[in-house]
Amino acid sequence: MASPERFRKIRQMLLRRQTSLTVVMDNVNKSHNLAALVRSCDAAGIHEIHAVSRRKHIFTRHNAAAGSSKWVNINLYHDIESVYSRLRDDGMQVLAAASTEKSVDFREIDYTLPTALILGAEWDGISEDAVRSADQCIGVPMFGMVESLNVSVAGAVIIFEAQRQRLLKGMYDHPALTETQMNRLLFEHTYP
Amino acid sequence: MASPERFRKIRQMLLRRQTSLTVVMDNVNKSHNLAALVRSCDAAGIHEIHAVSRRKHIFTRHNAAAGSSKWVNINLYHDIESVYSRLRDDGMQVLAAASTEKSVDFREIDYTLPTALILGAEWDGISEDAVRSADQCIGVPMFGMVESLNVSVAGAVIIFEAQRQRLLKGMYDHPALTETQMNRLLFEHTYP
Ligand SMILES: C[S@@+](CC[C@H](N)C(=O)[O-])C[C@H]1O[C@@H](n2cnc3c(N)ncnc32)[C@H](O)[C@@H]1O
Ligand SMILES: C[S@@+](CC[C@H](N)C(=O)[O-])C[C@H]1O[C@@H](n2cnc3c(N)ncnc32)[C@H](O)[C@@H]1O
Repeated sequence: MASPERFRKIRQMLLRRQTSLTVVMDNVNKSHNLAALVRSCDAAGIHEIHAVSRRKHIFTRHNAAAGSSKWVNINLYHDIESVYSRLRDDGMQVLAAASTEKSVDFREIDYTLPTALILGAEWDGISEDAVRSADQCIGVPMFGMVESLNVSVAGAVIIFEAQRQRLLKGMYDHPALTETQMNRLLFEHTYP
Repeated sequence: MASPERFRKIRQMLLRRQTSLTVVMDNVNKSHNLAALVRSCDAAGIHEIHAVSRRKHIFTRHNAAAGSSKWVNINLYHDIESVYSRLRDDGMQVLAAASTEKSVDFREIDYTLPTALILGAEWDGISEDAVRSADQCIGVPMFGMVESLNVSVAGAVIIFEAQRQRLLKGMYDHPALTETQMNRLLFEHTYP
């Protein structure tokens, strides 16, 4: 059983979880990028994320190292369409992160709305399908020579802008998980 | 020789370079983290960075992959003291990034001042010496279970806050490099 201190820490984390903010990793392949992204999600209070992958097993090597996939639920899909139908059901605005000319500056977005952020693969970027079905493309401004940022970096910069806005709006002070969800998760995390 | 288009792109980049913003990597070891950091620096217009390493060669594998270390000058040191004396000479405020209780929220800092950001190693974090000599410790707020962010993520989140503030203040509209520096760099980058 968890110590009282640990119990409090887990409870505190659950009270701050943001069910109306999520991330979709569209064929992001490298495990160190996935691990870094999950850590950022945890720190921003993201409860659940989605990963599209053609491969069967992602999160292998770095899983243990990061230790954060224990705290952030990761749903796996084989195609982006299934993720989109889920996001529509959840009433999310869908933002595709892409460093293109037509992308809106990520700082202009209201992330206090229910929001899903789609991130693309290291080499191929975000898929055509994912861009077509998104509400908007957003970009992190770049003033140098390099064409794109590392995917876990681009994701984090946007995720922490969402954290900033949600903090200002007091969204970490009101629990988003229901009492039932809270109690079930507390039990799962604190009993062996 | 570079095409006129490429020449313009490089000139544009040099006009936006921020000589009064820099990053120090205090024994950051993993090449993928170094590569991601250099890409972020390039995108924020950082001209020059500093790396402390006990090893002789860093930036090996990922050097070519990122392609950004061509555009950001990287000074190597064997100890942090040498970096600090350089930063003091340059009149920089020195901020140590650390996820500790006593760290100030990174969003409260004025990054339009001449600023150096110190980032720590993946396992050991920032060295005692580096913290002791810094003006301030700054932290990215975390609301989850994980104790720290990936170093390239933490660095990027802070670097892009600096970019935001400098953008607002019009600091990308006025060249920081001298005419002589500009011309020399343009020549170096455009002639074979
Ligand atoms: C390394 S980039 C992909 C580069 C790919 N060659 C392309 O052209 O899209 C990986 C992912 O990071 C995200 N990304 C990288 N830089 C970004 C930026 N400046 N703004 C928004 N998203 C970015 C995007 O989701 C992108 O698909
Ligand atoms: C993986 S962390 C190091 C963790 C190490 N175990 C420690 O206790 O410091 C690597 C570096 O990233 C930076 N970092 C990570 N999370 C941070 C945060 N929330 N705020 C500020 N810097 C952070 C710091 O510079 C840190 O030294």
